[in-house]
Amino acid sequence: MLIYYSRGFAKEGYTIALISRGPEALKVLAGSINDSGGSAESFPVTAYGAEDFTAAFSSIEARFPSPEYAITVAIFNAGHGVWKPFLQLTTEDIRESSKVNNEGAFAFSRAAILAFQKNDPSPSTGAKGTLIFTGATASLRGNVVTSAFAAGKFALRALSQSLAKEFGKEDIHVAHAIIDGSIATNNTRGNRNTPPSGPVENSKPHSLLSPESIATSYLYLVNQDRSSWTWELDLRPAHEKW
Amino acid sequence: MLIYYSRGFAKEGYTIALISRGPEALKVLAGSINDSGGSAESFPVTAYGAEDFTAAFSSIEARFPSPEYAITVAIFNAGHGVWKPFLQLTTEDIRESSKVNNEGAFAFSRAAILAFQKNDPSPSTGAKGTLIFTGATASLRGNVVTSAFAAGKFALRALSQSLAKEFGKEDIHVAHAIIDGSIATNNTRGNRNTPPSGPVENSKPHSLLSPESIATSYLYLVNQDRSSWTWELDLRPAHEKW
Amino acid sequence: MLIYYSRGFAKEGYTIALISRGPEALKVLAGSINDSGGSAESFPVTAYGAEDFTAAFSSIEARFPSPEYAITVAIFNAGHGVWKPFLQLTTEDIRESSKVNNEGAFAFSRAAILAFQKNDPSPSTGAKGTLIFTGATASLRGNVVTSAFAAGKFALRALSQSLAKEFGKEDIHVAHAIIDGSIATNNTRGNRNTPPSGPVENSKPHSLLSPESIATSYLYLVNQDRSSWTWELDLRPAHEKW
Amino acid sequence: MLIYYSRGFAKEGYTIALISRGPEALKVLAGSINDSGGSAESFPVTAYGAEDFTAAFSSIEARFPSPEYAITVAIFNAGHGVWKPFLQLTTEDIRESSKVNNEGAFAFSRAAILAFQKNDPSPSTGAKGTLIFTGATASLRGNVVTSAFAAGKFALRALSQSLAKEFGKEDIHVAHAIIDGSIATNNTRGNRNTPPSGPVENSKPHSLLSPESIATSYLYLVNQDRSSWTWELDLRPAHEKW
Repeated sequence: MLIYYSRGFAKEGYTIALISRGPEALKVLAGSINDSGGSAESFPVTAYGAEDFTAAFSSIEARFPSPEYAITVAIFNAGHGVWKPFLQLTTEDIRESSKVNNEGAFAFSRAAILAFQKNDPSPSTGAKGTLIFTGATASLRGNVVTSAFAAGKFALRALSQSLAKEFGKEDIHVAHAIIDGSIATNNTRGNRNTPPSGPVENSKPHSLLSPESIATSYLYLVNQDRSSWTWELDLRPAHEKW
Repeated sequence: MLIYYSRGFAKEGYTIALISRGPEALKVLAGSINDSGGSAESFPVTAYGAEDFTAAFSSIEARFPSPEYAITVAIFNAGHGVWKPFLQLTTEDIRESSKVNNEGAFAFSRAAILAFQKNDPSPSTGAKGTLIFTGATASLRGNVVTSAFAAGKFALRALSQSLAKEFGKEDIHVAHAIIDGSIATNNTRGNRNTPPSGPVENSKPHSLLSPESIATSYLYLVNQDRSSWTWELDLRPAHEKW
Repeated sequence: MLIYYSRGFAKEGYTIALISRGPEALKVLAGSINDSGGSAESFPVTAYGAEDFTAAFSSIEARFPSPEYAITVAIFNAGHGVWKPFLQLTTEDIRESSKVNNEGAFAFSRAAILAFQKNDPSPSTGAKGTLIFTGATASLRGNVVTSAFAAGKFALRALSQSLAKEFGKEDIHVAHAIIDGSIATNNTRGNRNTPPSGPVENSKPHSLLSPESIATSYLYLVNQDRSSWTWELDLRPAHEKW
Repeated sequence: MLIYYSRGFAKEGYTIALISRGPEALKVLAGSINDSGGSAESFPVTAYGAEDFTAAFSSIEARFPSPEYAITVAIFNAGHGVWKPFLQLTTEDIRESSKVNNEGAFAFSRAAILAFQKNDPSPSTGAKGTLIFTGATASLRGNVVTSAFAAGKFALRALSQSLAKEFGKEDIHVAHAIIDGSIATNNTRGNRNTPPSGPVENSKPHSLLSPESIATSYLYLVNQDRSSWTWELDLRPAHEKW
């Protein structure tokens, strides 16, 4: 999804720092944003663990030093989607899921919050920064074949709620979006980081989420003034059964 | 709050039909919107029961006939805030609360949905209409001295969720906003429908909700395209303890 | 279900006061409990509104005066199950549902709590009384065709949570049971108050709730000591999909 | 808490296999159960990771081979209570918490479920086994200083709900208890595994949870027949503010 969120924010003038595995795909992705008039740079990692995110944020801050630049938005979109019957899960599956959803998410959040704390409040919103987590239906409900996935998503939700409560008083905004449905992409079956040539043709706007619409919602969260912040919202297609 | 929501929508070009008790205050309120370049008309009721809302919608549809006009947004903002220790509640308190939050809310929703069903889907969002309910912390938690208030607010939340599920497939969007905190107004202690002379001076944007920001959020909900609809979001000041 | 709950408590030595519509059926039901060695008396009402429950509790207290007798357990099991598509619901449907689930439930709770307040704490549990509400899946989720039903059940849940918080410190225990599934009865299609000749033959113990098991759970709630009270538990058959 | 749960089950005739860190304390604890007429054996581990629990269950099954013995109840009571402001948390804290609440809990559950699958359904309840997780307030709400603790507890709750849904149809009962309050112990400040000489003197039964009462609730869950299983219940003292 990285490409779609990034484009939405690039269009609004944000400089984009992309963190992901897969350096080649990431480079192409950054190029695609730059080609369409945006400004993006890639910060590849080899895994989604604590050291990886900590190092990536260091590189980002070195490349985009304050006060010229400031990190004002961070979106944690990583996920580890092991969907298996419980007895087929290996210890390695659980460790990998924990690595992303616990260790990685905590380190990512830490780096983001430390960066935000250096900022002055935004004149327009009063926020020093906005940290958004992408959740799923499994953030709210465990189910058959989602034990590992839900455990990770529940943990992220707990983290986001705790941070919202702990850092709201420092004017740092933490939000959690529950994406409930399938997302329309041009390359759902291919490499998800291959940038599509244009905006996604969403042939079923009533039953597939448009990634551009998700980006619009994330921008809405970022632009909320601090008198009225949302911690959690759900997003689903009109015709989704839930 | 009526005045603030109304202004937010009036600024976006919506014609406003105001339903409320208190015909005099309502007329002044409509006048204030008209004076500032908007277009509003008042439809006073004497109570918030089924017949009242049904009649008000009939009057609105008579005054603003389709296809020239179309009802595309309806906001149910009525509330009945009995905050009393349980043993001090009278049967009359419960009846009045039920009247607004059950009978009234069902009739209001029915009229809104019947009106939406006549519409074509919006070219920009795909929606035939958006129905928004204003909830509160008590929508999620009963508490000491809120038994009556919470019973009403829980009921509204159930209604809104049921409608979102039942009418999403007809491209009708139903949303529920949880307002968690106190709202800044110029006349918190006076008549809440006396229109203030300008936008609210929110002296504590970190600890009081700005009614204009709530209106902005409601407009965001209305403008969501049908690939990504929100049923529920919470809104609270950055410094709110929750 | 009245008969099954009643039998469960009668077996434990409780004297049963039955409140329900349908005086003839109620009398037969009380008779059936008395015939099997229990002690039950019927207090018929003509509706489930505030006055009805208030009057019924007065009659019960007149018939079973303290200190000889004391009301220690009250189970609110009434429901009004309008399951209709939203647009088929009439104002009368909503009023009837509100009457039972709001007005009736508040009056029933009031009478129960006033009765409990006269009691000394139980030597074994520390409780002055236990008030149990029977909820359903619709207590937690609104859904297509359950708007009216869910609005009522959500309201009951709010009431029970508020009361649990308000009266816990007076050693009054309020609990809410979510019955998630179909209940096995001998006369599911007939008059639900016709007493069956014996315990229910539950031919599908994995997919139908046994009413005797529900009664066992209610007794467990009543017998909890006040160091560890449950407000809410769910009950569903092992094979229920949820 | 181990000692209190164990005693409750030992009194009902269960043979107890104790898994915990701290071999010396564990031995004393087992001895204390054996001295009071119960039967317990200790299976010490050096950590609460996947291999540890897997090995412990192997040892238990070797020591208590079926069909003579059968594992019918497993209680996952481990926790890792890092309560720190978010920015004071180390990566090691998160890893340790994930190890217990994810990796450890998944391995424990796997071993328990594999053991249960070998059993015939209990003649009295229809269950092949019962797996209980001990949760906390932080299972439902993240809060200031509980980001790590809540992330672990949310994950456990997701796991337990997923397992309840996945294995209910195999007549395996999975439950989750939310312990909301402080627990009375004789040695709250000392080594929690030092067995007290007798049952706990709970000097504040209205404001501290009795561990014996928690054990009673766990036994109630184990004894539920499969027509009416509880996934989740909360337990709190009568006077707890919540």
